[in-house]
Amino acid sequence: MDVALWMEESRSTIDQWIEADFPGQPDGSQSIEAAMRYSLLAGGKRLRPQLVLASGAYLGIVPKRLRPACLAVEYLHTYSLIHDDLPSMDNDDWRRGMATSHKVFGEALAILAGDALLTEAFAKMSELVTLGFSPPKVVSATQLLAHRAGRRGLVQGQVLDLAAENRDISVDALQEIHRLKTAALIEACVAIPAVLVGDRQSEEALLHYGRYFGLAFQMVDDILNVVGDATELGKATGTDAGLGKATYPRLVGMERAQAVLWQYEKEALTRLDIARGPLLSGLLTFAMDRKW
Amino acid sequence: MDVALWMEESRSTIDQWIEADFPGQPDGSQSIEAAMRYSLLAGGKRLRPQLVLASGAYLGIVPKRLRPACLAVEYLHTYSLIHDDLPSMDNDDWRRGMATSHKVFGEALAILAGDALLTEAFAKMSELVTLGFSPPKVVSATQLLAHRAGRRGLVQGQVLDLAAENRDISVDALQEIHRLKTAALIEACVAIPAVLVGDRQSEEALLHYGRYFGLAFQMVDDILNVVGDATELGKATGTDAGLGKATYPRLVGMERAQAVLWQYEKEALTRLDIARGPLLSGLLTFAMDRKW
Repeated sequence: MDVALWMEESRSTIDQWIEADFPGQPDGSQSIEAAMRYSLLAGGKRLRPQLVLASGAYLGIVPKRLRPACLAVEYLHTYSLIHDDLPSMDNDDWRRGMATSHKVFGEALAILAGDALLTEAFAKMSELVTLGFSPPKVVSATQLLAHRAGRRGLVQGQVLDLAAENRDISVDALQEIHRLKTAALIEACVAIPAVLVGDRQSEEALLHYGRYFGLAFQMVDDILNVVGDATELGKATGTDAGLGKATYPRLVGMERAQAVLWQYEKEALTRLDIARGPLLSGLLTFAMDRKW
Repeated sequence: MDVALWMEESRSTIDQWIEADFPGQPDGSQSIEAAMRYSLLAGGKRLRPQLVLASGAYLGIVPKRLRPACLAVEYLHTYSLIHDDLPSMDNDDWRRGMATSHKVFGEALAILAGDALLTEAFAKMSELVTLGFSPPKVVSATQLLAHRAGRRGLVQGQVLDLAAENRDISVDALQEIHRLKTAALIEACVAIPAVLVGDRQSEEALLHYGRYFGLAFQMVDDILNVVGDATELGKATGTDAGLGKATYPRLVGMERAQAVLWQYEKEALTRLDIARGPLLSGLLTFAMDRKW
């Protein structure tokens, strides 16, 4: 299977699913629908729903049955970006080459668009029962998503990330931030399909993959913030240093950061049966080699 | 049954449930747990979980089985207050006589505490399966909560409320704002127990009650903002006029607002079988006569 082609096609499918949920054209209105739509269609790479689909392929689940889960993780991810970009958080004006939500819609509507996307993520998860997954499994998958996203997951990661600005923290503390801020949601993406079909053994292997995929992904992010090209990235570089953010390159140097990245990449695949499909390893390679 | 006594006792029970979820003492730390705990224990009256329990009593469901639903609606309500109070929204420094979250923890942590509470609400709903409700019903109840809270419910109400500041709007448009901003979540509170036991007929009657309870509740809020006592309310009065907020008293005058309020109060009970329990009508009377 050509992974690059699959990524292109799956991205297009996911884009169509999102547009079906948010019909209409941008009309310059200051509505909640316009604000949600703007950020959802602001050039996202759809990596998280692709991870849902890749995990689904590993487990033999056809893509269309995972549509609500794909939308849920993308909505949840988009909410987290909108809120992270706010002036009181990372104060970013640009993302993926486009003005951030609060620059276009103002802070109030940006916060509310994030709130609505987070809420909609859970509405979507409920729809999985209409696609033949058993209700107890849907409840478990929803709970997994809430746990990975909440006070002991994604949100806690953002809190610790903000608290670490302009402070010296240990490598262990930094890894914990990355695990919560980035890996927690990615773990949910790949574990949800396994929970939905009740495959405990694969769930463990996929959670392990998700954790190291997430750690590696965040490491690449930190490295690109130092050495990346602002045009290709679609956002400013050097911003981490400006905010006094703790990053691996700052803590251990670029060479060591690169070495740890390779370790993560290798570790991610150790518990998977690679013969069952090239998508999970392909996505990992793609995410590691990215320039954006 | 003595409704006032029941309210006191149920409030105490709900407080204990919340404290069990957020153990420990305030320690002045800038943590997500501290910020969530602060707002949850900032003197809330627990009206929404009381509505869940009152609806449960109407349907013959014992309180402890509804614990996760009670916590879910209180967490969701608390998130909405934290975000509504933010500088970019209603910019309130005080609520229930205490400093608002962003005054104590700063804007970033206040936004994140709201995000975590919203997420935790959905984690809680999943726990209902452990209390003997059937998983398909739990999924339906979770979906109902997400719909009433999201882009076509509570969040949309806040968007329309902000957009109506300093503008002339019709009485119909104002009622729509109140229905979304306040009634939508109250509808969910009383409908969730009916969905959990699959009682369609009661669900309709309870949704009707919730809608008019919510409209009446918001009307009292608007009236108290004009004529109420700031000390008893624990927050500033006259703030709606200051923000140029559309309110019933401003639109139709205080006398007419009072008349509509009585209509709402009467309408709320029309579809209920009052003989099945005094709590729903008692709570309504209590909420109408409040001075806070």
